Amino acid sequence: MRILWIFAHPDRNSLNGSLLTEGLSTLDELGHEHQVSDLYAIGFKAVLDAEDVPGADPERLLVGSEQERAYRGGELSQDILAEQAKIAWADVLVLQFPLWWFGPPAILKGWFDRVLVQGFAFGLKDADGRVPRYGDGGLAGKRALIVTSVGARESGFGPRGIHGHLDEVLFPVLHGVFWYTGMAPLPPFAVYGADRLRAADFPRAAEALRERLRTLPSAAPLPYRYEHGGDYDEDLVLRPHVAPGRSGVAAQREGAVSAAGRL
Amino acid sequence: MRILWIFAHPDRNSLNGSLLTEGLSTLDELGHEHQVSDLYAIGFKAVLDAEDVPGADPERLLVGSEQERAYRGGELSQDILAEQAKIAWADVLVLQFPLWWFGPPAILKGWFDRVLVQGFAFGLKDADGRVPRYGDGGLAGKRALIVTSVGARESGFGPRGIHGHLDEVLFPVLHGVFWYTGMAPLPPFAVYGADRLRAADFPRAAEALRERLRTLPSAAPLPYRYEHGGDYDEDLVLRPHVAPGRSGVAAQREGAVSAAGRL
Repeated sequence: MRILWIFAHPDRNSLNGSLLTEGLSTLDELGHEHQVSDLYAIGFKAVLDAEDVPGADPERLLVGSEQERAYRGGELSQDILAEQAKIAWADVLVLQFPLWWFGPPAILKGWFDRVLVQGFAFGLKDADGRVPRYGDGGLAGKRALIVTSVGARESGFGPRGIHGHLDEVLFPVLHGVFWYTGMAPLPPFAVYGADRLRAADFPRAAEALRERLRTLPSAAPLPYRYEHGGDYDEDLVLRPHVAPGRSGVAAQREGAVSAAGRL
Repeated sequence: MRILWIFAHPDRNSLNGSLLTEGLSTLDELGHEHQVSDLYAIGFKAVLDAEDVPGADPERLLVGSEQERAYRGGELSQDILAEQAKIAWADVLVLQFPLWWFGPPAILKGWFDRVLVQGFAFGLKDADGRVPRYGDGGLAGKRALIVTSVGARESGFGPRGIHGHLDEVLFPVLHGVFWYTGMAPLPPFAVYGADRLRAADFPRAAEALRERLRTLPSAAPLPYRYEHGGDYDEDLVLRPHVAPGRSGVAAQREGAVSAAGRL
């Protein structure tokens, strides 16, 4: 398989840097091809602004539609086009980052904001005139894995932990970025208590990561719902018989059929 | 009251810019003081890196502890210190941003990453030797309001909407940033269908915002749980009698007592 590994940590000597090195060598051993976007190393521009959409209406910046216009007109900047080309090439995206304030660092959030533009990652009409999203879309057929380090202990991120279950804390990425654009979200891989780990502890974390990478092609994705699978009504609300009595992000998963069969 | 308004949109001519102008004049009418951090206008540096923590260990960058060291040693850069001073001054933080990829734009995520450092916003021991978080902490006693614009329709962000309930999609900010640092999170204010709104539609959105700002001092915060309120065991897991049978982010709220009585 072809794997794009997006790395968003400022220090290659960190636990994350060590895991990146181990991860890439594991991919080599498994016979996968890979490319790396080391966002800090390339000085990736994090902030989406008017410079990203040359020729935008000076009266009012409608970001989404201006991004699509610039994309279709070939006017996006080279750094964005380079990332899009790597995404198009890849079968699997790995996003590796330390969990800062319960989400990706700004440099990776900016990669979402700037690279995953309308017309490329989503917002394309299918043959029936529908706009495919959630399980379908510009990046359909790919898989996506989060590899993250967490300062806190694991128990606090369990189903009833104080920080919220990790799968739900990461819902904006897993469901809102991966699944929205059609990618199958694999269960996130996390190393907990990361700040307390010393270099001598890294090999155990690396072994766990290697194990997860071995199952990249086969692991069952998180079961989310297809937008056009019949579960939602025309207002994009779950029909009454679906996950009855449930609400919030949990309702988007309970009883959903894994995408594993399709991808 | 003293209000710090953090604005994270690239264009002052946008719907968001219009709401900012209206919001500030409403605060004036109500007799509140305010300061603004217009992150795009000041060119706020979004990306936390080693430059933010001068004198860090070159062997391995442990971000959290190096930030605390730099904070205590007075070595943080002027732009970070300026934001911290405004936060310390304020009774209420308003965070205004367009919802991009189900979260704040990178420039605002970077404001969290760089400004809310350990030792300032959290990680201070209280008299009992406990580290206060979740309802208590460096920013305890303040209130915080999200003002956001959303491209999609409202129904999709309702309790059973496809995108997830807005309160839960924003859980990483509401619970993970505001509540974690001790701030009382007010229910978010959202303008839906934002990209389809024309300038002629702005006044209605502005009136809704004005109404929300009138209740800034009195509105009941979202009811989350205090870390040291007895609901969690020593592993930071909900005790069995608390929200029985519930899990995930919903369990952090169900049956929790609003912080309104305390703040």
